[in-house]
Amino acid sequence: MPLIQSITSRENALIQRLRRLAQDALAYRKQGEVWLEGDHLCSACLARGVPVPVAIVADSAWIGEHGTATGDDERAALASRLARAADKVIVVPEALWKAFTGLESPARIGYLLPLAAHAGSAECSAQAIHATARTVVLDRLQDAGNVGSILRSAAALGVQQVLALKGTAGLWSPKVLRAGMGAHFALNLVEQLDADDLAALQVPLVATSSHTEHVVSRVQLPDPCAWVMGHEGQGVSEALQARCALTVTIPQPGGEESLNVAAATAICLYESLRQRAVLS
Amino acid sequence: MPLIQSITSRENALIQRLRRLAQDALAYRKQGEVWLEGDHLCSACLARGVPVPVAIVADSAWIGEHGTATGDDERAALASRLARAADKVIVVPEALWKAFTGLESPARIGYLLPLAAHAGSAECSAQAIHATARTVVLDRLQDAGNVGSILRSAAALGVQQVLALKGTAGLWSPKVLRAGMGAHFALNLVEQLDADDLAALQVPLVATSSHTEHVVSRVQLPDPCAWVMGHEGQGVSEALQARCALTVTIPQPGGEESLNVAAATAICLYESLRQRAVLS
Repeated sequence: MPLIQSITSRENALIQRLRRLAQDALAYRKQGEVWLEGDHLCSACLARGVPVPVAIVADSAWIGEHGTATGDDERAALASRLARAADKVIVVPEALWKAFTGLESPARIGYLLPLAAHAGSAECSAQAIHATARTVVLDRLQDAGNVGSILRSAAALGVQQVLALKGTAGLWSPKVLRAGMGAHFALNLVEQLDADDLAALQVPLVATSSHTEHVVSRVQLPDPCAWVMGHEGQGVSEALQARCALTVTIPQPGGEESLNVAAATAICLYESLRQRAVLS
Repeated sequence: MPLIQSITSRENALIQRLRRLAQDALAYRKQGEVWLEGDHLCSACLARGVPVPVAIVADSAWIGEHGTATGDDERAALASRLARAADKVIVVPEALWKAFTGLESPARIGYLLPLAAHAGSAECSAQAIHATARTVVLDRLQDAGNVGSILRSAAALGVQQVLALKGTAGLWSPKVLRAGMGAHFALNLVEQLDADDLAALQVPLVATSSHTEHVVSRVQLPDPCAWVMGHEGQGVSEALQARCALTVTIPQPGGEESLNVAAATAICLYESLRQRAVLS
């Protein structure tokens, strides 16, 4: 049985920490902890066997001591089950949830995780790079929705690692977590890297470009490789392009360079996967 | 030379119309007009030869009568050039722009278009469906960023038409326009359709599903076809699945059903294009 505690004051230090994590995209780096809100993210985290020290649950979703929910409420039953998987359960009044939620409709369940406790930890160090993994490199991507979508595509399409260069949206920020839909827990994630840190990779870098004749579907893509995806407006930096073993183009009969970066990434990862399946 | 007019009051009826268009995602349907904000969207509109009755420009970006800008300001020069392409230019004080902008940093240039004046008009009618076009059907997609990204992929990857069923995010809403990056003007767009209206299509419907053995890269996709993409949580409705001539699956070694819908669409359209290029 987890330890159960009730918190009712919005001045409580833990509530203040949650509030900062929900409101400030990069607070997780300062605090060294991540706020996972909602049953989908919590379920994904549990499914990957990540240990959960602290669950926060609204009293209206908590069945039992301090809680007001009954087992008849299906969503409360799920939230309670997710909460019981933690070492410690903190029950808060539903009204207090508004003080630290990042969602429009309250989730009533969330996990507070130390940043280093799960498999895919966001260490700010090239030491954490897996040298031979199938990889995606993010070069200063700005949009949290794009970054989250790329993490989902990476996890779904057999990529093992995502490396984010300095200037990329925070991988563990609330918006990227939401858009990632649990993909974070299936990947080795390393962020705040310099381009020079990529020297630790022993797989060739591949980038997309409209200035090449190599059509992605007609060249044999190296496997494993590291797909390099660039800033929404500026693309991949010249310095990073120069490190690439190969640049390829996605045919766009309707106009060059008009794909969204997350859509382009999905296509590249799919093509890598298709070629592996065809060759194997 | 366009007619040039100055507006300085935020109570002005035109300013009120712009404000509603910027703030209310579906106001364009009631007002029958679309507010295109920013030089990128205006340029895309012009590039497709869409006639522009009214441009709105901030005085700080307007070179000449009522304007305060000089030709030395590169962005002002672009905004002025875009404004002069309209039949009528309305110059407003830059401070007034805040009353009707949908952007965080002011664009200083925008077009006000009648909803029916451009090639891809959002008519609420099955009459506007092109029966044999390469098509994407959107079944109640909720997220404006996803819808915009799909329009971009469609335009880039050779699709001619996007049909949105009732319940899909408004195709001409400001967020979808921004995420679409001009793709709207390269497509035949029809929205607020019922599933029955799709009977007007003479091309087979194809949907993705995890409950099929047809791997998208290994079946011969019909061409032209209509790709049907479903609601972010619920997928394609059962009634619409039943209308599909073919369902295919995208191999996801990292876990089924984990791709974002815009990423999945990009992959499907890419695979259609790849097969055409390989076969031709």
